Amino acid sequence: MKLKMMYSFLNSDLTIIEEALEETVQAESPLLHQASLHLLKAGGKRIRPVFVLLAGKFGNYDISRIKNVAVSLELIHMASLVHDDVIDDAELRRGKPTIKAKWDNRIAMYTGDYIFARALELMTKIEKPFAHQILANTLVELCIGEIEQIKDKYNFDQNVRNYFRRIKRKTAILIAVSCQLGAIAADVSDDVHKKLYRFGYYVGMSYQIIDDVLDFTGTEKQLGKPAGDDLHQGNITLPVLFAMKNEEIREKIKKVHAATEREEIEHIISLIKDSGAIEKSLKVSDNYLNKALEILNELPHNRAKKTLRDIANMIGKRKF
Amino acid sequence: MKLKMMYSFLNSDLTIIEEALEETVQAESPLLHQASLHLLKAGGKRIRPVFVLLAGKFGNYDISRIKNVAVSLELIHMASLVHDDVIDDAELRRGKPTIKAKWDNRIAMYTGDYIFARALELMTKIEKPFAHQILANTLVELCIGEIEQIKDKYNFDQNVRNYFRRIKRKTAILIAVSCQLGAIAADVSDDVHKKLYRFGYYVGMSYQIIDDVLDFTGTEKQLGKPAGDDLHQGNITLPVLFAMKNEEIREKIKKVHAATEREEIEHIISLIKDSGAIEKSLKVSDNYLNKALEILNELPHNRAKKTLRDIANMIGKRKF
Repeated sequence: MKLKMMYSFLNSDLTIIEEALEETVQAESPLLHQASLHLLKAGGKRIRPVFVLLAGKFGNYDISRIKNVAVSLELIHMASLVHDDVIDDAELRRGKPTIKAKWDNRIAMYTGDYIFARALELMTKIEKPFAHQILANTLVELCIGEIEQIKDKYNFDQNVRNYFRRIKRKTAILIAVSCQLGAIAADVSDDVHKKLYRFGYYVGMSYQIIDDVLDFTGTEKQLGKPAGDDLHQGNITLPVLFAMKNEEIREKIKKVHAATEREEIEHIISLIKDSGAIEKSLKVSDNYLNKALEILNELPHNRAKKTLRDIANMIGKRKF
Repeated sequence: MKLKMMYSFLNSDLTIIEEALEETVQAESPLLHQASLHLLKAGGKRIRPVFVLLAGKFGNYDISRIKNVAVSLELIHMASLVHDDVIDDAELRRGKPTIKAKWDNRIAMYTGDYIFARALELMTKIEKPFAHQILANTLVELCIGEIEQIKDKYNFDQNVRNYFRRIKRKTAILIAVSCQLGAIAADVSDDVHKKLYRFGYYVGMSYQIIDDVLDFTGTEKQLGKPAGDDLHQGNITLPVLFAMKNEEIREKIKKVHAATEREEIEHIISLIKDSGAIEKSLKVSDNYLNKALEILNELPHNRAKKTLRDIANMIGKRKF
């Protein structure tokens, strides 16, 4: 089953989100408007809005209210992607030229700032101080994660703990908070939004590990960028850390930054694939997923819960 | 009278602000902590915290509460400076190496993001949705201002209206909102915090015009960067716009980006000084200041009001 089919009952609300996304980045500055729209049109799975809406189904679901949270979190995600592209010197994102490539780094930085400010503006429509405190703490963690990611690049001495902490900040927290804030905007009890946070956290960890696996097992067409690109950029992910336990492979991986020919990257990819590191990584991902599913059992029954379970199950099997 | 003498009765509270600034940018990431501290230690007039505190004196002044607003706004200002330095390729800020120069552009971008996120986190301690809405709107305007500034660089066809709109977004709004949020955090009436906003806006406009004048009349020692640097970077400020009304000067100014020798810049500076543009700019600044002083007359009497008047008067006369 495809991801979108699982939550087809959200379709009309997701259309509202899509319209609200476009409306929000409207700017009297044509440059800013163009750059933001370019980013929106590049698509994306809108997985954070989906989590926000589903979590909202555990309480008083009101689309006119909860859409502010959904759009805000998707925009925060997008803003962080724009800043990432500046850092990574990425030319392509989802197969399309990045803002950095199409305009320049300065525009990319401020477009990120702008989208981010718009996101905050929307969130202030939820008049609950607690929600803003959660969001602000999340933003701090995201930024620390970004800096740590730079610091950890090409650092072959990092361990699995560094990796987990990094992907928590980079991915899992924002999905966790999507679930939590969606629930808070729908006035659920503390117990429920805390559980939804944990569900989102585990799903997010699993999601990022799969993402990091796909960097090696996906095709350029599926990924929208060449396989092994993350490693080539110096990101030491879980499969890499597992593969490096073999000293011979480790020495070859350590020279990845010097690789200029495509074949050299391909060779390293096949070494990692043959090392068993992919299977070991997938097992870790599965562990996180199981924890997510366990938490679901503790939540009240409703249609959204079944969908959250389907999504969690699908994440473990996704190919791109 | 020196600026600091005018508000010596705030000294102990400003010490608290200074400590809170340092405490806030603490980060477990040493790189982030170092880069943020470097920025803090470079100093600055802390003019936004001063306005926050003075505005708070119109209501229920509680330092443990209002310090969150003061620190938050100073950090937002600092975060925007860090991002500006990335854009401007600035090597020096207040006579010290910029984060961009000392580390690199990527670190500077994320240090800005981080400081900004910390600022938001602090502000969420003020549990008034209205305050957050004001802040979020302000951030959107700041970002639009930044993008417009890039777009307007070396654009010799812009008019005085472009300039005013730009400095409103770049400087005046944040000072206006410092006054307004300080007042809101102290529970003043709507009428009072709106007037304080307008006071801050006019003072901010005047302040920035003087800043732009000083780029031509200040010394390198006073400015912490060579005179005429703004113009050399392509920023078309009020004195430049006035001077360009003379066609001959206009043609010379239009070639400023090609100037490689210090003498060429010096020549353009003296043309601008001799054109009467400085006096005309100072007159505009005075008009704004007078509007600020008029609003003060409408506010309740207290010690802070006298200080706000002294500060406004001093801004018109400041030399650096």
